[in-house]
This record gives sequence, C-alpha cells and structure tokens, in this order.
Amino acid sequence: MSEITHRRAGRPRKAVLDRAKIGRAALDLVDETGDVNLPELARRLGVTTSSLYHHVDGRSGVIELLREQVSAHMDVAILEQQPWDTAIPAFLRSYRAVFAAHPRVVPLLTMTTVRSPQAIAAYDRIVVLLEEIGIPVDRAMEVLTAMDNFVIGSALDLAAPDVMWEVPDGVEAPSLTAALAKQRDAAHRAEAAFECGLRMMLAGVAAELGQVDGTPAAPPAR
Amino acid sequence: MSEITHRRAGRPRKAVLDRAKIGRAALDLVDETGDVNLPELARRLGVTTSSLYHHVDGRSGVIELLREQVSAHMDVAILEQQPWDTAIPAFLRSYRAVFAAHPRVVPLLTMTTVRSPQAIAAYDRIVVLLEEIGIPVDRAMEVLTAMDNFVIGSALDLAAPDVMWEVPDGVEAPSLTAALAKQRDAAHRAEAAFECGLRMMLAGVAAELGQVDGTPAAPPAR
Repeated sequence: MSEITHRRAGRPRKAVLDRAKIGRAALDLVDETGDVNLPELARRLGVTTSSLYHHVDGRSGVIELLREQVSAHMDVAILEQQPWDTAIPAFLRSYRAVFAAHPRVVPLLTMTTVRSPQAIAAYDRIVVLLEEIGIPVDRAMEVLTAMDNFVIGSALDLAAPDVMWEVPDGVEAPSLTAALAKQRDAAHRAEAAFECGLRMMLAGVAAELGQVDGTPAAPPAR
Repeated sequence: MSEITHRRAGRPRKAVLDRAKIGRAALDLVDETGDVNLPELARRLGVTTSSLYHHVDGRSGVIELLREQVSAHMDVAILEQQPWDTAIPAFLRSYRAVFAAHPRVVPLLTMTTVRSPQAIAAYDRIVVLLEEIGIPVDRAMEVLTAMDNFVIGSALDLAAPDVMWEVPDGVEAPSLTAALAKQRDAAHRAEAAFECGLRMMLAGVAAELGQVDGTPAAPPAR
C-alpha cells in the first residue's frame, strides 16, 4: 500500500514519526550497538536525518527519549507510599530492573543531564522522603546520588554473568576462591548482593542522620 | 624503512603485536565508539583479524585485556595496609578514578567474567579484609559486590555533567529544585556523593556485622 493511499483526503494524516517511536528505535539501536547515531537511527526509521531534527534536539534529545523509555517502566507510584524504608527500596528495585534490561543505555544516560519530566518527578519525590526523615535539604542530593550510583552499578551487575569471577589456573587467590565456593546463593548472586547493598544503604542513611544531628555516626566495628 | 630492514639477521625479530599494545588500542576504540569490534581493532593496529587471534581469545579475550589496562591503574598495594576502613575506601577511590576516565568500558567489563590476575588479586585481598573484621566467608561476596556496584555507578557519575538534573520550564519539582539550589558543593557534586556513599557503605558493613552476630542492625531512624 502506498503512502498516498494512507494519506487520503478527509482522514487526518498519520504522523510518520513521533517521539515514542523514535525512542523505541533508539533503545533498540543502543541495545544492539552500545551507541546512538542519528544517521543510523534515521535509516532504521526510514526517514532522513534532517526530519529527525523536527522531533528531537539532536543527540542529547535522543538520549532524553531513551530516558523517557526506561523511566516509563519504573514504579514511581510506590514512592507515594510509606514508610520511606519500604518505598525507596521498592522503587530502587524497579529502577534497577529496567536498567538491567538495557545495560548499554546506562553510560549514555549517566553522561547526560536529566530533563525527562518522569525522571524529575521520581527524584523530587525521593528528596521529599529523605527530608521527611531528617536529611537536611543541603545534603539530600548527595544521599540521593549515592543511592542512585549503587543502583546503576547493581543494574550492570544484574546483566552480568552468573559466574562473575573465575580464578585462573596458576593464580593464587585462596580467600576469594573460598568466598566464591561458599557464597550462599551463587545462582542469584547479583540479587543477593543488591539486597545486601540496599540494607547497607539504608543503614548508611541512618548513620548520616546521626552525623546530621551533630553526633558522628559510630565508626564501623573492627 | 621496510620491514626487511628491521628484521635483519642477528637481531631478534620485534613482535609486531603484543597484548599490551592490543589492550591500549582496544581501550582507545571503546573510549571512542562504546564497543570493541575485532575487525576494526585489527584495522587500527594495521594487522589482519586472524593475527589478533594469535594473541587473544576473541572478543572476550580483548575485554580481559581492557580489564588489565584499567586494573594496572588501581592502587592494589593500599589494600595491604590497615585499618580496613581506611584501606578499602582508598582502594575504591583509585578504582573509581580509573573507570571514570573510561566510562564506556564499564558495561563491557561488568558483562564479562573477571579472570585478569591483577583484578583477582585485588578482590582476594578485599575478601581477606572483610573476613578480618568478621564478615563470614559465605557473606563476603555479597558485601564485596555491593561495594563494587556502588563504585561502578559512582565512576559513571564522575564522568557525568556538573549539572546532572535540570527541572524544565513548566515541570513542578519544588523539593528537587530546592535540594539542587542548596547542595553544599555543586561544583564537586559527584565527589561529595561518592564520599557520602563511601561513609554509607562503611556504616552498612558495620550494620551487616551486627546482623551476623545474631543481633539485627538497628533499623534506620524515622
């Protein structure tokens, strides 16, 4: 069927391109190649590169579409629930799951300023939760960013092989070898590490509260 | 000068390729393109793809060379020092600095089993330090991996823009807007978040010790 047939009089012209369509194609491209390249993206969409520019502001615009694509799969609504130490981990689990499904998108998103309204709304809500428990406004971004960094790293780890370390023949690493052999749930090692790290992060937030109050957090036990 | 001249009798033939040279070229390639591609790597080195296979075991072999390149810049020696809560953060700072300089290498390394002897030695030493403070052998990998994930995410964040969040016109995010405006050191926001996260992680290790002893860690304050 020709385009002329589609665009007959009396019927609204169907947009050949829209932002969601560009975003989905860009996500496929990055999943496959690790990068986004406007001429290649245009080729895949069957349009000219210049027509892409009617919809997105160049490469950084495409990267923001990637962020919208992944943000749409995060459970932002859970952040409206209480208590914070249930809501934040639940959100962070959904956040990690999306990035684990698209690990090659991660460095592109982390190297570009966040402007997507959905992502901004999620970060806004986390700041509210942190302030409610007593993290002062001038510390909120560093606590939030530390948790964000942990989740991004954990997402990459979830996409990693089940056997992440293999001590080669002739290399002596007795403690690592024993720790690998005895880990409690090798089949779900990334899952176990993420849950362990979430607990550590929540304990860390509590310790930061201790510091905020003027009482330094107890140093880790030796 | 022709190759014949170089390879005159009585003088050892100079190897055209070695693993370090391949590793450096691969690192440049990934820094530029986000991926490693053996035909392109061979082209840059001025050799055939099949000659690359004399030195490395295909794509996964090249990725292990990338790991050797970056591991060589980590301060593994500091892990021999005491106490653990000084040694581990110092190592993690050097770890993060290398990956921040090569953020596009990160997803390739995190998706491939670690076999590089240098990296294995560093992980072995961290397991020793964790066991010395009381983390049992069957928990060591999850604690280590949680810290690893935080560092990987922080490395990507260090390579990120100084302005990481920008609330667009027409989007309401009052708490995020205030937190961004009032952050204590916006010019070094990634630095501040990493140091905050390191403190949180160390507090988290201490809390895990509490759980290990049969006494659950105190829940974060509300």
